Amino acid sequence: MTHKQAKAVAHANIAFIKYWGQRDPALNLPATPSISMNLDSFQTAMTVSFDSNIVADEMVINGDRDLGAAALPRVSAQLERVRARAGVTWKATVISRTNIPSGAGIASSAAAFAALTVAAAAALGLNLSEAELSALARRGSGSACRSVPAGFVEWVAGAGDDTSVAKSVAPPDHWALCDCVAIVSREAKAVGSQRGHELAPTSPLHGARVARALDRVSACRQAIAERNLAMLGQAMEQDAVTLHAIAMTSTPPVYYWIPATLGVIRAVQAWRAEGLPVYYTVDAGPNVHCLCEEPDALEVTRRLAALPGVLEVRTARPGGAARVV
Amino acid sequence: MTHKQAKAVAHANIAFIKYWGQRDPALNLPATPSISMNLDSFQTAMTVSFDSNIVADEMVINGDRDLGAAALPRVSAQLERVRARAGVTWKATVISRTNIPSGAGIASSAAAFAALTVAAAAALGLNLSEAELSALARRGSGSACRSVPAGFVEWVAGAGDDTSVAKSVAPPDHWALCDCVAIVSREAKAVGSQRGHELAPTSPLHGARVARALDRVSACRQAIAERNLAMLGQAMEQDAVTLHAIAMTSTPPVYYWIPATLGVIRAVQAWRAEGLPVYYTVDAGPNVHCLCEEPDALEVTRRLAALPGVLEVRTARPGGAARVV
Repeated sequence: MTHKQAKAVAHANIAFIKYWGQRDPALNLPATPSISMNLDSFQTAMTVSFDSNIVADEMVINGDRDLGAAALPRVSAQLERVRARAGVTWKATVISRTNIPSGAGIASSAAAFAALTVAAAAALGLNLSEAELSALARRGSGSACRSVPAGFVEWVAGAGDDTSVAKSVAPPDHWALCDCVAIVSREAKAVGSQRGHELAPTSPLHGARVARALDRVSACRQAIAERNLAMLGQAMEQDAVTLHAIAMTSTPPVYYWIPATLGVIRAVQAWRAEGLPVYYTVDAGPNVHCLCEEPDALEVTRRLAALPGVLEVRTARPGGAARVV
Repeated sequence: MTHKQAKAVAHANIAFIKYWGQRDPALNLPATPSISMNLDSFQTAMTVSFDSNIVADEMVINGDRDLGAAALPRVSAQLERVRARAGVTWKATVISRTNIPSGAGIASSAAAFAALTVAAAAALGLNLSEAELSALARRGSGSACRSVPAGFVEWVAGAGDDTSVAKSVAPPDHWALCDCVAIVSREAKAVGSQRGHELAPTSPLHGARVARALDRVSACRQAIAERNLAMLGQAMEQDAVTLHAIAMTSTPPVYYWIPATLGVIRAVQAWRAEGLPVYYTVDAGPNVHCLCEEPDALEVTRRLAALPGVLEVRTARPGGAARVV
C-alpha cells in the first residue's frame, strides 16, 4: 500500500487588470495579460492524500461532502494532470478548508486550484519550479496561476502552455495596500466565469479591450512599482467597467452588478472627491473590492459598513505565495 | 412698433440608438447616426413673441423667471440663429410650459429646442422645410432635430450643417409601442450631456461604438419596419450599455446610473425571462425607459411602480411632429 500526502495553503487574488476572454479555452490561455494582488486573509488549505487502496477521487469542502462532490469533476481533472506528470494512477482524497465564499467574485477557485496543485505536486514528490506550478494551476482555473507567486503578480498572456504563467512583480511588503471587500451578496453568481469567458468575443466591445490590454497592464505595472494609487486606480476602474460592459453586451448578456454594487461604486467616487483616496474594482460577481493604502483602511471599512446593502466588509493585505505547510 | 408671435408644441424623444460624441461640437454634428421615437405625453409648448420695443430676450419656464434666466443663454443663441435667417434684430419674450423634468435624461432640451425653433421660425414668417427646421433645431440641442419630424425618426449623421437632419422612418400609428418611464430621481444630473459628448472620445471604447453604429442603426430601422420588439430591444439595450460604459470609462469618468437604475434594469430582464416582453434603455441620466407593446403596458407599469426606488412611472406612446398651434 502506498500513501502520499501533502498540505498546501494559497490565497485568493484580486485582479487590478483582469482576465476576461480566452485565446485557447482548452488550455485556459487568456486573451490578455492581467495583474493582481494576493489577498492574505482569504485563503484555502488543501490536504491531498494519494492512496493506492482507494478506487475514486473524493473531496470534502469545509466538512461538507455534497459541496465536495459538486466540485469533484474539475478537481479530478486537475489531479489527473498532476498524476500524468508524476506517472502514477493513485486516486486521492482532498480535504479543503476555506474562508472564501464560493462563486461570489472573490476568486475562490483561484485559491483552491493553486493550493490543490501545489499540494498534489508536493505529495507526489514532483520537483516543479514556480513557473511550472503556475502553468499547471492555470489548467485547473485560469486565475489560479496568479495565486502561485507572492504579492503583486503579473500573468503574461504567453505563447503556449509553458509560457502562459504568472510571476511576482513585487513582494507583499512592497506596498501597504489594503483591499476592503464590500460583500453585498453571498449568493453564487448565476453565470460562472467560464461561461462569461466564452461569451466575451460576442460583445462588440471585446476587441477594443484586447487592443488596449498592454497599455493598461503597463500603466498598472508602473503604478505598482511607484506605489502610485491614483494611477493604479484609474487603470483598475476603467478595466473593471470595460469587463462588465463586455459581459452586459455579450449575446446573451451577463449582468453581475446588483443595485448595491453600484451604490458602493458611487460612494467610493464621492469619498474620493472629498479627499479619501480609495478606488474600486469588481470581479465577475456583485461584490466590490475597494483598494486604499493602510492608513485609510479603517475609515474606508467603517464607511463601507454603513452603506445600504453592504452585508459585511472583509479586509485583506498583500498575501504571500502558495506554499506547502 | 412690430410684434410677431407664434406658439409651437414639440415632444421629447427616446433614442433607441443614441447620440453620444460629436464630429463637430460647434455645429452639433454627431459622431454616429441615431434613431428615436417621439413621446406623446412628454411635451413642451413655447410661445415666442418678437417685439421691436424690448431691449433683451426674456424667458419664463412654467411661470418661473429664475429658471427662465438660467436657460436664457442657450435660448438666446438659438433665437439669434433664427433672427439671422430672417434678417431681423428684434428681441423676444419666450414663454415655456412643459411637463418634462429638466436635466434628468428625459430629453427636456430636445422638446424645448424643437418647439422654440418651430415657434420662432413661424413668428418671423420663415417658410422652412421640415429638414431645414430639423437642422436648425439641431444647432440649439443635437437631439432636438429628432423631435421635429413625426413618430419614429432617424437622424442621419450627415456631411455638414444642411445634411445632418432627422427624418421620419414611420408615422406614430405604425407601431403601438409604449415607453414606461421609471423615474428613480428627479434631480438634475451632475454632468450635462454636452460635457459627456466632449468627453466621449477620451474613452477607450468610443471607437468601437462608432465603428458599429451603422450596424446598430440598420438593425433598429429593420426592427421598426417589421415591428420586431425582440430585435429592437437587443440592439437598444446593447447600445445603452455601450453609451454608459463609454461615459464611465471617459477621463474623467461620468456615472449616470444610480442603484435604482440597475434595480429596474435587472427587474426588466427577469420579467422578460418569465415571458413579459419588455426592454430597457437609459439616456444620459438615471431614469429607465422600458419599452413594450401596448397590451403589456399596464402590467409593466404596475410592476415598475412596485420596485424599490421607483418614485413614479410615466407612460408615453409614439408622438407626432413639432407643430405650430
